[in-house]
Amino acid sequence: MKKTRTRSKPKAAKKAVRKSAKKAASKTTKKRKKAGARAAKKEIPTHATAEDMARRQREISVAEFFTKNRHLLGFDNPRKALLTTIKEAVDNSLDACEEAGILPEVKVVITPCEEQDRFRVTIEDNGPGILKKQIPNIFAKLLYGSKFHRLKMSRGQQGIGISAAGMYGQLTTGKPTCITSKISRNGSAHHYQLEIDTKKNEPRIIVDETVEWPVQRGTKVEIELEAKYQKGRQSVQEYLEQTAIANPHVSLEFVTPDGETNVYKRVSNELPVQTKEIKPHPYGVELGMLIKMLHDTKARTLQSFLHLDFSRISSRVAGAICEQAKVSERSRSSRIARQQADALFKAINRTKIMNPPTDCLSPIGEELLLAGLKKQIDAAFYTAVTRPPAVYRGNPFQIEAGLAYGGSLSADGLAKVLRYANRVPLLYQQSACAIIRSVLTTDWRKYALQQSAGALPTGPLVIMVHMASVWVPFTSESKEAVAHYPEIIKQVRLALQECGRKLAVFIRRRRKAVESERKKAYIQRYIPHVAIALREMLELSERQEKTIVTQLTDLLERSRS
Amino acid sequence: MKKTRTRSKPKAAKKAVRKSAKKAASKTTKKRKKAGARAAKKEIPTHATAEDMARRQREISVAEFFTKNRHLLGFDNPRKALLTTIKEAVDNSLDACEEAGILPEVKVVITPCEEQDRFRVTIEDNGPGILKKQIPNIFAKLLYGSKFHRLKMSRGQQGIGISAAGMYGQLTTGKPTCITSKISRNGSAHHYQLEIDTKKNEPRIIVDETVEWPVQRGTKVEIELEAKYQKGRQSVQEYLEQTAIANPHVSLEFVTPDGETNVYKRVSNELPVQTKEIKPHPYGVELGMLIKMLHDTKARTLQSFLHLDFSRISSRVAGAICEQAKVSERSRSSRIARQQADALFKAINRTKIMNPPTDCLSPIGEELLLAGLKKQIDAAFYTAVTRPPAVYRGNPFQIEAGLAYGGSLSADGLAKVLRYANRVPLLYQQSACAIIRSVLTTDWRKYALQQSAGALPTGPLVIMVHMASVWVPFTSESKEAVAHYPEIIKQVRLALQECGRKLAVFIRRRRKAVESERKKAYIQRYIPHVAIALREMLELSERQEKTIVTQLTDLLERSRS
Repeated sequence: MKKTRTRSKPKAAKKAVRKSAKKAASKTTKKRKKAGARAAKKEIPTHATAEDMARRQREISVAEFFTKNRHLLGFDNPRKALLTTIKEAVDNSLDACEEAGILPEVKVVITPCEEQDRFRVTIEDNGPGILKKQIPNIFAKLLYGSKFHRLKMSRGQQGIGISAAGMYGQLTTGKPTCITSKISRNGSAHHYQLEIDTKKNEPRIIVDETVEWPVQRGTKVEIELEAKYQKGRQSVQEYLEQTAIANPHVSLEFVTPDGETNVYKRVSNELPVQTKEIKPHPYGVELGMLIKMLHDTKARTLQSFLHLDFSRISSRVAGAICEQAKVSERSRSSRIARQQADALFKAINRTKIMNPPTDCLSPIGEELLLAGLKKQIDAAFYTAVTRPPAVYRGNPFQIEAGLAYGGSLSADGLAKVLRYANRVPLLYQQSACAIIRSVLTTDWRKYALQQSAGALPTGPLVIMVHMASVWVPFTSESKEAVAHYPEIIKQVRLALQECGRKLAVFIRRRRKAVESERKKAYIQRYIPHVAIALREMLELSERQEKTIVTQLTDLLERSRS
Repeated sequence: MKKTRTRSKPKAAKKAVRKSAKKAASKTTKKRKKAGARAAKKEIPTHATAEDMARRQREISVAEFFTKNRHLLGFDNPRKALLTTIKEAVDNSLDACEEAGILPEVKVVITPCEEQDRFRVTIEDNGPGILKKQIPNIFAKLLYGSKFHRLKMSRGQQGIGISAAGMYGQLTTGKPTCITSKISRNGSAHHYQLEIDTKKNEPRIIVDETVEWPVQRGTKVEIELEAKYQKGRQSVQEYLEQTAIANPHVSLEFVTPDGETNVYKRVSNELPVQTKEIKPHPYGVELGMLIKMLHDTKARTLQSFLHLDFSRISSRVAGAICEQAKVSERSRSSRIARQQADALFKAINRTKIMNPPTDCLSPIGEELLLAGLKKQIDAAFYTAVTRPPAVYRGNPFQIEAGLAYGGSLSADGLAKVLRYANRVPLLYQQSACAIIRSVLTTDWRKYALQQSAGALPTGPLVIMVHMASVWVPFTSESKEAVAHYPEIIKQVRLALQECGRKLAVFIRRRRKAVESERKKAYIQRYIPHVAIALREMLELSERQEKTIVTQLTDLLERSRS
């Protein structure tokens, strides 16, 4: 052991040691420190000085950070890596199609490679395409995108996902990400092969060419990665199925590594309502953010700053805020001192301001929720509800819930919960999610279901919950669970209770019908005996007996239905 | 509602709409698209084209990202923010002191501010100090530090923590972070007040001056932040207490907002063994990483690259790897083609290579573990064990465990678990942690304790587990839980079993002693009666009767102890 270590030190280092050791003996304190520093540089264990430590300080690129911490992005293991890669690409495709007003058609192909545990994943859409010059940054630079800086409902929000998927592919197979994109029918397509330079978090272009691609427009992404393909829970298949439920306007095609093709056809030709971008709501802005906004604003006066850079502040309200803060409405925004900003901040929070506008949200809607559930789940009863919008930390959000009950659903075991955030199914980290917390703390026994304390209800039940928001607060970069904001938990519970009441009516009515049927059958069994008894007592003919049977049966039929 | 929105649009935008609408009517498709783009820019809802989307693409600074996602860093709520801020500063102080070979003395002061829910936190250490030019980057730039790029055991590893704390303070109070640092007795100290420019993730210097500070050397950090001070579980107090247990060489002083002073004196004057930085182990390196290393290396030939840039590859093993990969040992490292890299990667994983060296780890050690436990916990029995080092994904790690039982610990309720990673106590996200998984899956009934299925054992028990590693795999940036690597779970379980066996011996022996005592008391009670009976039967004198009592008591004493 020792021998190996000694050998593995470069010769130069050894020399330096001898040299510095010789020198150090005859030098002053100051010089000795220098020698020590030099020794430390060469990795000879010694105590470090402030200078030594300073020498080691370096910037860490965000790509290096996430390479080392790739489990934070959902690339913990090969199976999850496959799902995350496809999810990020499909989410981007759907966002782009919807923004461009195109009914999305997305094709996902997983092809096995020669090497074991390696797959080539291709995701192709009919979206608007991507401008040539933007392709490298979008696909090979972490923290780059159009969605982070705005308050608008979309699937993507961080500018990490697809570049991270490419980076994972590169890390595990050494292969670049391939992108082909076309923005108009007449032009030709651009083809790029990109790597990410993790040291700089910058794209490295391997191939850049113009190609013929016989489609109108669209984007195709290909990533080769180490992965594991499995069906069942938390699989690519499950993700696509659940996507189809919450996105009835989407057509999906999926070719498995075995060559099997699954098609999920759209059930609605209507695109979701186009959402609007909103300004931040004053109640959700913190002091430091307010100072930053004052510094960055283009508005000249304080009043116009308040009015233009926030939602729901009219000129009148802006005036009232300034008055309360004892700052002139006409002050230059960029010249507001910290103490004035503090006064403004307090004044804002003491002023009554309307809730944020809600046309930034595009819920699925009860009708399409039902259509989606009916398409994928074979049940006897369906219900859905869309709650009115609410607000957490200044961000508007809206909760929808749906239930499917009975039919071919398994009556044993716990209910199944489908969680969605901005129409994207969440498959991992269920127990960490605010949605599950709400399901667990709802008293399902009130709604004619069975439930043990602290557990999911049991029975043939699927519970679906969707959160739509301009900013979904996820518990990690991999976007798998919603953080526990009390307002969110409350809205989910209210939605579930509303659905639950409807379900209870159905279950109780069905029980009553069964009960009634049982009683009817019971009475029916005695009618012939009653007739025989009457015939004997009243000495009736056989024909009269038959008439009595018919009449009594009629009466029973009438009275019990 | 509608009115407000119309008003809030700048006049220029309205003009643009009218203009573009007029023009568009008489133009070709191409030009119409341009007009549409212009309209979209001014936020008039329309379908976006590829050009519109391209215009919105932007880089996101890592500081902006973490401001919006600050719950990922442990700043979810004011109470946790206070703990996280202190934790990050104290961890840095301890790391710096130990690297410089100084016995750490750290003082933490929380002072309430005038405003409600606002505190000023001061953390002062006797460490080596920080070079002037490094201060701004270390305290006001995320992803900057000396610990990320090396494989060495330390508390910090990401280069985020302390800058994030300053950023949170700035966000909630608008106040800059203050740093005072001195690196030698003779010089004067530097004082900085820093803000973080979140748009660029760069420090902004507010104050930069030289001050007199009557200490030998050290660093003082002051952050004002919105926070909540509470005692009890997951409090600052608990963090400091648990830090004292795992760091018996540290002296801590804590002044609460009420002015109360708590002191945790060191119980050992020995610093932890200085650890060595190691090279990555070949088994833990992925193909993409290998390609990157080949590209970045300073070694000229392939053989020297393998030998110098990895741990545990001797020249002989390097030769064997090259031979198996069918690549010449003398190839220039930077010229290795992708396919050759692939062959090398496979060859590495087929070659038998020694486990990584373990002098990079500095466990607390059984003796100091016991000292730490005894200092803070009043129990009747203590035990501790340090496991031999093991490896996960190429990273060496070492598990230690300790138990404290009985004494003044509460006998009701579940055992308490203290989790540590590189000597830092982990207070949040217990249920997500690999350590807890191991505790839960250990069969404590074997060790004379009670335990329900899937729960913690019950009884007067404290369980302490420490993981030491060159890279602790945390489940989030806030470093609150260890990821579920099977090797880690296994090592923890083995450590717990070893402690459990010792505990079982103690508990069983104590039970036996109690039982024996009970029997002895029982026999003792009958001795006088036996004596009386003998006196009557044998007609003995009173003196003889007393002698019998004495002799029998002696005999009992001798035989039962």
